[in-house]
Amino acid sequence: MKLVALAGGVGGAKLVDGLAKILHADDLTVIVNTGDDFYHFGLYICPDLDTVCYTLAGLSNPETGWGRAEETWNALDNIQELGGPSWFRLGDRDLGVHLERSRLLSQGQSLTDVCSHFCASWQIDHQVLPMSDDPVATLVHTNEGDLPFQDYFVKHACQPQVSGFDFVGADTAVPAPGVIDSLWAADFIVICPSNPWVSIDPILSVPGIKDVLTRSANLKPVIAVSPIIQGRTIKGPAAKMFKELGIEPTAVAVARHYGNREHGGLLSGFVYDDLDADEQFSLEELGMPLFKTNTIMKTIIDKKDLARKICQFGKSLIDKQVN
Amino acid sequence: MKLVALAGGVGGAKLVDGLAKILHADDLTVIVNTGDDFYHFGLYICPDLDTVCYTLAGLSNPETGWGRAEETWNALDNIQELGGPSWFRLGDRDLGVHLERSRLLSQGQSLTDVCSHFCASWQIDHQVLPMSDDPVATLVHTNEGDLPFQDYFVKHACQPQVSGFDFVGADTAVPAPGVIDSLWAADFIVICPSNPWVSIDPILSVPGIKDVLTRSANLKPVIAVSPIIQGRTIKGPAAKMFKELGIEPTAVAVARHYGNREHGGLLSGFVYDDLDADEQFSLEELGMPLFKTNTIMKTIIDKKDLARKICQFGKSLIDKQVN
Repeated sequence: MKLVALAGGVGGAKLVDGLAKILHADDLTVIVNTGDDFYHFGLYICPDLDTVCYTLAGLSNPETGWGRAEETWNALDNIQELGGPSWFRLGDRDLGVHLERSRLLSQGQSLTDVCSHFCASWQIDHQVLPMSDDPVATLVHTNEGDLPFQDYFVKHACQPQVSGFDFVGADTAVPAPGVIDSLWAADFIVICPSNPWVSIDPILSVPGIKDVLTRSANLKPVIAVSPIIQGRTIKGPAAKMFKELGIEPTAVAVARHYGNREHGGLLSGFVYDDLDADEQFSLEELGMPLFKTNTIMKTIIDKKDLARKICQFGKSLIDKQVN
Repeated sequence: MKLVALAGGVGGAKLVDGLAKILHADDLTVIVNTGDDFYHFGLYICPDLDTVCYTLAGLSNPETGWGRAEETWNALDNIQELGGPSWFRLGDRDLGVHLERSRLLSQGQSLTDVCSHFCASWQIDHQVLPMSDDPVATLVHTNEGDLPFQDYFVKHACQPQVSGFDFVGADTAVPAPGVIDSLWAADFIVICPSNPWVSIDPILSVPGIKDVLTRSANLKPVIAVSPIIQGRTIKGPAAKMFKELGIEPTAVAVARHYGNREHGGLLSGFVYDDLDADEQFSLEELGMPLFKTNTIMKTIIDKKDLARKICQFGKSLIDKQVN
């Protein structure tokens, strides 16, 4: 059973890690948000791609979920000592990756090429693809003005009040090589428990990606996993964003955000947390297959359990389509 | 007594350190070679400026003479793991400096501004100036082709046979702000025991610098300290270069390289090592004042001793001119 996962950073990486541990290398492709990518100190930094790859490679910091394990901060300490900007936490090991990526990009390699090369170096067997090799920059409209994503997310610590988003460059961006092919080849697609507004929507904003998911000739289950549990997120500002946009942050709100495929939306199934059992009736009103389980991934066992259940759920939806 | 020192990397930095420890902040300006500067991973790296500044700030690695004390190599380890170039040893602390310098340069600050700002951060009281804010790149002509300096020096470990040098960009380079003024204001000038070919000659190649040293209206002692002792150098390829250029590497050869001012050269005095006492007669043939002493700087006492003796020698030459 071939599966494509759409993922952002920490939450997405956890589920992807679980999926990678139960699926054969040929059976999982991860399409990662690059709307967070930015230049800092002249280096090209891909926070979500790195989080996914570090996690799959077993190199990530288990405490933060982002960055590297056993990281040191000597470069940043020296930048700080010289009065330079230290709001973006550049670890030394992490820096090596940004330096080499920037060097290869400046030589004309594509982000896809670089990502593939890094995955090989890190012995990541499953395919990890950036959503696009073209720049797509998430811009956050806030009460403090329009902020580039990392300014909003890190520099301003998600404090400004959000009123909307733009994915600058998405109009003309082309899906990275392998993205459309992998979606066509997939038996079903999982939208990871990542931020719908700034992790998944940027991926869906790249022309062609949403089309292939909803084109009837290719129709296959698309399952989203709610990143919102009990009105909150494990990490990140998704719940805060829903609120500021005037929407109560619930699993239902996430399901509504993507929409039921039968009513012009994207989803043919939705996974929500045991803790949100009280949302069952509201969710059922959306008229799509549901799956309630533990979605909180604290351990590798949690990750694999959730991955297995999603695969079962996906298979049940395929079987239903076939019958 | 105001003094200007022309310096390259490790050897120059040692003497500069000694001079800084015995001279008031207003009385010492260091003009540093930037012919070794280069871009690596998109970062602008100034090996000699950094060596001089790290030494003056007490931040340098006491074992190598270059780089930072208590350095870590996590960025480089990761670059290497990804198959990137690791021939240039970028330490993590060092990287922070290159990152911040590159960021400030990309914002339009001059190298002089950045250097001054860094010196303030590092509490270096004496003035350290790059020879120029314009790019001057030392190119080494060798039996393996023309090599950019760091390629020759680090990547090829000085193995290729040298046939000459070019200082690309020197024709149109302008001395950095403060360079000419400091030379005019100096009571005497010291050419540090740096490599004559690739540390001092690049400085002298910047239009205007040599002129002000030899212009009669401004005539003041110029003293060189031999980097060659017993036919060898403490560090670096100067002796090898002399040989490959068909010149026996001796203190005399260094003195001849710069030349006696009275015969169209630069020097009004020359300092050589006690160990080269047997060169006394050959040196005397050059017809300039000589000073023989210990020039091997193993300890801070050695550095200060040499600095003091050079100042005495300089003063004696000034007195001689006055009388």
